[in-house]
Amino acid sequence: MKSIQSLRGLVQHLQIHKTCKTVAVACGQDANTIQALARAVEDGFANVRLFGNEMVINKVCDDFEISHSVFSITPCKTDEEAMKQALSTVRNNESDILMKGLINTDLFLKSVLDKEFGLMKPKTVLSYVCAIELPDYPRLLFVTDPAVILQPDLAQKKAMVEYAVKMAQKFGIKKPKVALISATEKPGEGLPHTFDYSHLCTMARRSQIKDCIIDGPLDIFTACDPNAAAIKGIQTEVNGDADILLFPNIESCNAFYKGLMLFGKGELAGILQGTEKPVVMMSRSESELSKYYCLALACLMTENN
Amino acid sequence: MKSIQSLRGLVQHLQIHKTCKTVAVACGQDANTIQALARAVEDGFANVRLFGNEMVINKVCDDFEISHSVFSITPCKTDEEAMKQALSTVRNNESDILMKGLINTDLFLKSVLDKEFGLMKPKTVLSYVCAIELPDYPRLLFVTDPAVILQPDLAQKKAMVEYAVKMAQKFGIKKPKVALISATEKPGEGLPHTFDYSHLCTMARRSQIKDCIIDGPLDIFTACDPNAAAIKGIQTEVNGDADILLFPNIESCNAFYKGLMLFGKGELAGILQGTEKPVVMMSRSESELSKYYCLALACLMTENN
Repeated sequence: MKSIQSLRGLVQHLQIHKTCKTVAVACGQDANTIQALARAVEDGFANVRLFGNEMVINKVCDDFEISHSVFSITPCKTDEEAMKQALSTVRNNESDILMKGLINTDLFLKSVLDKEFGLMKPKTVLSYVCAIELPDYPRLLFVTDPAVILQPDLAQKKAMVEYAVKMAQKFGIKKPKVALISATEKPGEGLPHTFDYSHLCTMARRSQIKDCIIDGPLDIFTACDPNAAAIKGIQTEVNGDADILLFPNIESCNAFYKGLMLFGKGELAGILQGTEKPVVMMSRSESELSKYYCLALACLMTENN
Repeated sequence: MKSIQSLRGLVQHLQIHKTCKTVAVACGQDANTIQALARAVEDGFANVRLFGNEMVINKVCDDFEISHSVFSITPCKTDEEAMKQALSTVRNNESDILMKGLINTDLFLKSVLDKEFGLMKPKTVLSYVCAIELPDYPRLLFVTDPAVILQPDLAQKKAMVEYAVKMAQKFGIKKPKVALISATEKPGEGLPHTFDYSHLCTMARRSQIKDCIIDGPLDIFTACDPNAAAIKGIQTEVNGDADILLFPNIESCNAFYKGLMLFGKGELAGILQGTEKPVVMMSRSESELSKYYCLALACLMTENN
């Protein structure tokens, strides 16, 4: 497989492979979500089942001149009911992907995390990986975790690396380069996450973490700029060519990706990690295009290969 | 005073006001530093005193066709001697600004921090503020702290805000807007820095922090994108128009600014804070242009107004 190097390329990959998955959307009632879904249906990689307030859904469709018939709509009286029904179709294998619409994040996450009726694999780490496309970087950049784990411990960091590696492999990158991000490339007493980084590197050498090249601490320059490592005289296999960036805490990953979305003309696709089936969960303020790409990513992650 | 809205505008301001300061450089021996200094001399805002290995300095000047006569050169046999002599001219008011050249950062900082022979004001917080210029943001963005304080406590956060406000005022922004950055705009138990943020907001209401509008926690979107606050329904005086971003830890500020330097076509000027006289201290891998702008910033900070 040739690797997928852009988000547009991701969609083309789905189209070439005739991948088409069924998405259950809890409260798919806001304009951004409905537009993204309609485009995914039109582009042939999604069937969409909307659960929610039918009047609101119809109104939004009319406002944006989207035919109601492109969606299967199940009217639900409350957000709780919409959530429950959407989730149950995913659990019953009637749907492949769960997506959050205009519903409270706490309610959505609580349902996904529910031990009895939710979507979590037992004893897995819940996390988040984003694929970011930047005009000034020659490949996609997978970053983790911008959204879920506040300050990951060693086991969580290991899981985050493994999730990102697995995602990069779905994009056709056989042995991705993982940069463990810090403010400098020098480990130190005052930077506790750098102890975990050293440990992750040792684990990789002992094949406890597989299928990737991993190094850290590295800063953003030595991770993503081939010149920087040379100027600083740092020997690293990552060498300015990182595919994956693991951040030490949620604030650093969140500020990094949001800065690039606003000021670096970035575009992204991201999904939750650790669930039995892909879960698309985005902020209300994300664009229609980001939601569309998230859906495409979820479809890619359900492909067998 | 009309506010300065770009780094080029900063240099023009110095030229219009005929500001010209004397810079003492410890081991000003690398090409980037010497080129930046020569340009500052040519542009009329700096006199330069180089302390270091004369042969190396002359060689670099020759390599880049820079006349030796634009600098005052004091030959020093060791880095320690160069550091000591450069520093002593700043302490004696023979120089206005101290700048780091090709010298070990630990040695440089140790000398600056020395209680007896250094440049620290008694009982002040040592920190760092950067002014970042971005093509896609209509004003300069002052960020703190990308380089010195690993995880600031409340008193350090207060000092960081005050340093950044003072710097913004030197650029002519009378009442800058300060965004206290987090991953979301919702404070929480799991995010200890948000307690400090609430405290800083209360302190501002009680006039314990002056001359600024301050709010947080805010994420990068609500801080820097006027649309985001509206979409999320967040009421904040910062409202997507932040002048200053305070970050909760070094990793988040460092990853944010380095991401924008690499992928957002950013340019920057930054200096240490808490010293008696401006101190320019940059990484070896920073560009000539960044060093030039740092020098211009140091000159601005020494202006009386």
